[in-house]
Amino acid sequence: MELQKVEALLRVSSALLLISTACLVSLDTQTKVVFVKRRITYKQLDAFVHLVYVASAAAAYNLLQLGRCVFSSSLKEKSNKSYRYLAWVFYLLDQMVVYITFITNSAATEQAIIALNGAKVFQWMKWCSKFSRFCFQAGGAVVSAYLASALMALLTFISAFHLFRLYSPKSFLRLKNTQVN
Amino acid sequence: MELQKVEALLRVSSALLLISTACLVSLDTQTKVVFVKRRITYKQLDAFVHLVYVASAAAAYNLLQLGRCVFSSSLKEKSNKSYRYLAWVFYLLDQMVVYITFITNSAATEQAIIALNGAKVFQWMKWCSKFSRFCFQAGGAVVSAYLASALMALLTFISAFHLFRLYSPKSFLRLKNTQVN
Repeated sequence: MELQKVEALLRVSSALLLISTACLVSLDTQTKVVFVKRRITYKQLDAFVHLVYVASAAAAYNLLQLGRCVFSSSLKEKSNKSYRYLAWVFYLLDQMVVYITFITNSAATEQAIIALNGAKVFQWMKWCSKFSRFCFQAGGAVVSAYLASALMALLTFISAFHLFRLYSPKSFLRLKNTQVN
Repeated sequence: MELQKVEALLRVSSALLLISTACLVSLDTQTKVVFVKRRITYKQLDAFVHLVYVASAAAAYNLLQLGRCVFSSSLKEKSNKSYRYLAWVFYLLDQMVVYITFITNSAATEQAIIALNGAKVFQWMKWCSKFSRFCFQAGGAVVSAYLASALMALLTFISAFHLFRLYSPKSFLRLKNTQVN
């Protein structure tokens, strides 16, 4: 019961952080005259477009799981077999979501770093000195997405715990005799 | 016993893939005349420098764990308590290594994608059309690193299994009475 509260709290916080990431990125735009008048939006940066999609999807997933957390506290009273299948599904989904979030987030970070530092050998210019407000907002989005990813990494601990404690500590993938413990 | 063989196999394969990533990246260099004579190496791309360090460290970690796998098959016969601490340490280490590998690898991929496609709005030029051999080798390194990350993600399943099956399925973080099951 205690664990369920922790899980609900983690799901709420990571969903909020992911939503704020999606909002920060999708509202990020700046117009400035650099040689010609330029309007920069997140849509011109592939990695940030993907970040918006992934953050929204991950937030939706966490909210769905939150609903499951809050309303179906009677999950454990279901038959042992269907509980086990569900535990596997939730574990695999949690893992997938956290890896995908980390991957897109880190790609966006790398793109932001190139915009910040440039790359001399490739003649890639620094842009953050010119579009600083745009860059600060993108940086905030990335930090919030990393926090959300860290919380979701903790959530995989919980789903792994729910799943693997069903198995026997002595023999491989043998289910425990749950009547005893 | 069966599981230990699977783990050893996964550790060997991911270590080999990580070593091949590190080699592919660190031997990647191309000299070509584009306006002036240019020599491109991985050292000019931050994300690839980090990829070499992380891939080498992760390969070393997997080889160490492989040694543990092969030589200390008697781990389970140790006292229950120290086994549990070790299981926690291995689980957390495995998680850390897999996340860090995913993050650096995805940053390197993003840098490679920018080199491949450029970014018009920022006047970042495409370079892969000019340095194609360099880019193919970098692409191979990234693919091999992703395969290694996927194998290490499977390894976290095993370490989670080793850890959480020690706990009771009914009450939170209560250890099981291992004499019974």
